[in-house]
Amino acid sequence: MTAQYTLSELAQKCGARVQGDPDRQVSGLNTLQDAQSHELSFLANPAYARYLATTRAGAVILGPEAAELYAGDALVLANPYLGYAQLSSCFATDRGAAAGVHPSAVVDASAIVHPSAAIGVNAVIEAGVSIAANVRIDAGTVVGHDSVLDADVHLHRNVTICHGVTIGARTVIHCGAVIGSDGFGNAYADGRWHKITQIGGVVIGCDVEVGSNTCIDRGALGDTEIHDGVRLDNLIQIAHNVIIGENTAIASGVGISGSTRIGKNCTIAGAAGFAGHLTIADGTFISGMAMITRSIPKAGSYSSGTGFMESREWRRNVVRFRQLDELARRVRKLEQR
Amino acid sequence: MTAQYTLSELAQKCGARVQGDPDRQVSGLNTLQDAQSHELSFLANPAYARYLATTRAGAVILGPEAAELYAGDALVLANPYLGYAQLSSCFATDRGAAAGVHPSAVVDASAIVHPSAAIGVNAVIEAGVSIAANVRIDAGTVVGHDSVLDADVHLHRNVTICHGVTIGARTVIHCGAVIGSDGFGNAYADGRWHKITQIGGVVIGCDVEVGSNTCIDRGALGDTEIHDGVRLDNLIQIAHNVIIGENTAIASGVGISGSTRIGKNCTIAGAAGFAGHLTIADGTFISGMAMITRSIPKAGSYSSGTGFMESREWRRNVVRFRQLDELARRVRKLEQR
Amino acid sequence: MTAQYTLSELAQKCGARVQGDPDRQVSGLNTLQDAQSHELSFLANPAYARYLATTRAGAVILGPEAAELYAGDALVLANPYLGYAQLSSCFATDRGAAAGVHPSAVVDASAIVHPSAAIGVNAVIEAGVSIAANVRIDAGTVVGHDSVLDADVHLHRNVTICHGVTIGARTVIHCGAVIGSDGFGNAYADGRWHKITQIGGVVIGCDVEVGSNTCIDRGALGDTEIHDGVRLDNLIQIAHNVIIGENTAIASGVGISGSTRIGKNCTIAGAAGFAGHLTIADGTFISGMAMITRSIPKAGSYSSGTGFMESREWRRNVVRFRQLDELARRVRKLEQR
Repeated sequence: MTAQYTLSELAQKCGARVQGDPDRQVSGLNTLQDAQSHELSFLANPAYARYLATTRAGAVILGPEAAELYAGDALVLANPYLGYAQLSSCFATDRGAAAGVHPSAVVDASAIVHPSAAIGVNAVIEAGVSIAANVRIDAGTVVGHDSVLDADVHLHRNVTICHGVTIGARTVIHCGAVIGSDGFGNAYADGRWHKITQIGGVVIGCDVEVGSNTCIDRGALGDTEIHDGVRLDNLIQIAHNVIIGENTAIASGVGISGSTRIGKNCTIAGAAGFAGHLTIADGTFISGMAMITRSIPKAGSYSSGTGFMESREWRRNVVRFRQLDELARRVRKLEQR
Repeated sequence: MTAQYTLSELAQKCGARVQGDPDRQVSGLNTLQDAQSHELSFLANPAYARYLATTRAGAVILGPEAAELYAGDALVLANPYLGYAQLSSCFATDRGAAAGVHPSAVVDASAIVHPSAAIGVNAVIEAGVSIAANVRIDAGTVVGHDSVLDADVHLHRNVTICHGVTIGARTVIHCGAVIGSDGFGNAYADGRWHKITQIGGVVIGCDVEVGSNTCIDRGALGDTEIHDGVRLDNLIQIAHNVIIGENTAIASGVGISGSTRIGKNCTIAGAAGFAGHLTIADGTFISGMAMITRSIPKAGSYSSGTGFMESREWRRNVVRFRQLDELARRVRKLEQR
Repeated sequence: MTAQYTLSELAQKCGARVQGDPDRQVSGLNTLQDAQSHELSFLANPAYARYLATTRAGAVILGPEAAELYAGDALVLANPYLGYAQLSSCFATDRGAAAGVHPSAVVDASAIVHPSAAIGVNAVIEAGVSIAANVRIDAGTVVGHDSVLDADVHLHRNVTICHGVTIGARTVIHCGAVIGSDGFGNAYADGRWHKITQIGGVVIGCDVEVGSNTCIDRGALGDTEIHDGVRLDNLIQIAHNVIIGENTAIASGVGISGSTRIGKNCTIAGAAGFAGHLTIADGTFISGMAMITRSIPKAGSYSSGTGFMESREWRRNVVRFRQLDELARRVRKLEQR
């Protein structure tokens, strides 16, 4: 079951040059510190260069400069971190899935399932669903009626796709994620909330990844949109009618309120929060736990919050924060004396 | 499959007056900007009034003043946003569910299921469960033993209801939500944690809505309570023995610690956090990401956190926050000179 | 069905001394305020001592000093909160599960399932899984291929265990939790993200508890580790290659970024966030919503954020926070005059 490759095979897969023995075989991938002689490793971050002298790795993915200083077998290419990414799938531990519909799966008669698709144990495919070539749907996952999955989509275990969701080619949705549940729409009148039925959908592009237990709500009117190449980590909230631009990456715990539009190529660190109806410029960086309450028209790096400190010291400063406006006025008065 | 209504039919449903042609037919609902001639639209927020002149909508839901300025077909009523809410369900895209138990569902022999209820694909109904008229349970959902679902409850796909949970009429639980899991109760002794078995339950009232992947824990002793008309968005944490008062609305990502009691008619914005054992007054507004560490005896609007700013500027201010108490003392000294 | 115990039976279970009638029977457990005459109660927090005079409880778990002042039947031991924890399981409302594989469960032929294990309705056990004695797997739960569950593990309803996950004896995983999903690993090159296949695993120790909808990602290379006795609440994010030391307790909504190492016996309050690659000392306390951006080499109590206040007052102070560095410079100037 263990995958085994020669360095020349691997070099072909990532466009690297072999330094040393092209027939050397490796059957695993590990860090410089932990790799054994049968394993491949890599050096991407210069901070780890010191481990190169002592690593027991059978071969190392290196940039050209590091390769000159390394006597062992190596795969040499300009971007060793990219090389590591590209070769990592060779050592996947996931067993994959056989094409076909498992006998325990329940597929509605009106659904169209490509014969190359793999529909797993206890999966549910509702009416009018369309499933393209090489789609993989793992155990316990439900695909709601009238949803469309393009080629090579992979829905992991216990995913929920609600009705009328469109998912582009090669997109991966991780366990427990919920795509297309109702947006949070309510009108207050006569002392209570009246539900606004959410009649829009969700459109997810190609090459997107959605993390575990992340929620993407359907639009109130019109669609919620996740554009090509977006990366969403776990436990993220994407509210109704949000738009996430191409190749934006969002870390765990982020919440984006309704109708906010995040640009392309943004990077949003963990647990940041966005108010609704904002527009965030392409290429913006938002730091962890930042609270974004207004649109950001200009790319840049934005933050909020206080640093952390010992609680005793913090309590004193917090009291002063509460008095900050008054303190500023007192300084003003002193200046005027 | 497309729903189609005349304006007079719709006017009856929401108590509006028809302006123009009562026999005009509409078969969809959309924003003023995007509506086509077969679609209904609405104007609720004055900021969008400028779109009224150019909309292609077949008819528009309007307040009396806007209606006077509008030459096209309209449904006129005092609160057009409420009219939109009330008519939105006419255009639902959800296919609904047929009454009866799907052959793949597993219903324990001791459960009582009303014949008008719809039990979906691979749903699980455990021992002693009671399911009233017109309940709808979607695919993959599990209802734990001895739970009680009142009439017209709708559990979406892959919901988990643990044992001994009570859910009132017309309440809707969205995908992936977990109701009645153990509260986080542990006693520390002899260098380790000892589990406190959570023997209380969860009681959810009528007309409640619970969002995707939200968690409501069962009580340690006595129940966790969600009162009538409460609206909970996605990914919310409701700890053991929390009480949420009637018609309170809570946005995504909020966490409420054990035994805290939130009043009626509160509005809590996204990702706010509440310490345990607090009491929050009826009608309180809490802003996004606010950290509530003490009880709030008086209704009002409460906030915490710093605004966001460019990271470079933020870093300088954060350093000063750390020195804030010292700065205040220095100002005091200057004043005393 | 109701459990009933004499005080002498209960005293044996928790090492208490009976004060009063050892044959007194109790069939429930409740707070001092709510207990009826057939119920046991407890006094652990001195703040509730005033309820002792008026409680209707049939018997009370007490410390030695409180017992001297109490005339009723009691179980007396040094740590009454621990006594409560130890006796709470006697009054569990959960019906338990019968040994054996439910006919609707799908167990791969290559899986090894101990005959004393209980595999619930619609549960899925994939290839190569190993399930030890007295394991309990509830309805709708999926165990991915090659995972190993040690004795007395309990997976609640709709849990997802991905492939190659190891779970130690007596560990409990609550509904909707996802263990072993992919870490968030991507390399940016050529204007897009390249997936880094996550080939590490997850190793969870003994006597661990994992809350509902919590996510623990598998390692990129090497394992994510949750050590013995750890307690994780709901909706927590544990990223790839995080290590959580023994007996650390983490409240709901916390996020821990990749490769961060949390020490033993730490207590982390709700919604705190940790950057990646940090090391946190054993015994550290982190307060709610704190933002931890650097390693903490010394145990202590750490906090961040501002207190909450009325929004109007808050807005004024927030403006001043933005000017804090400038304010500090102005004070400096005044001092130099």
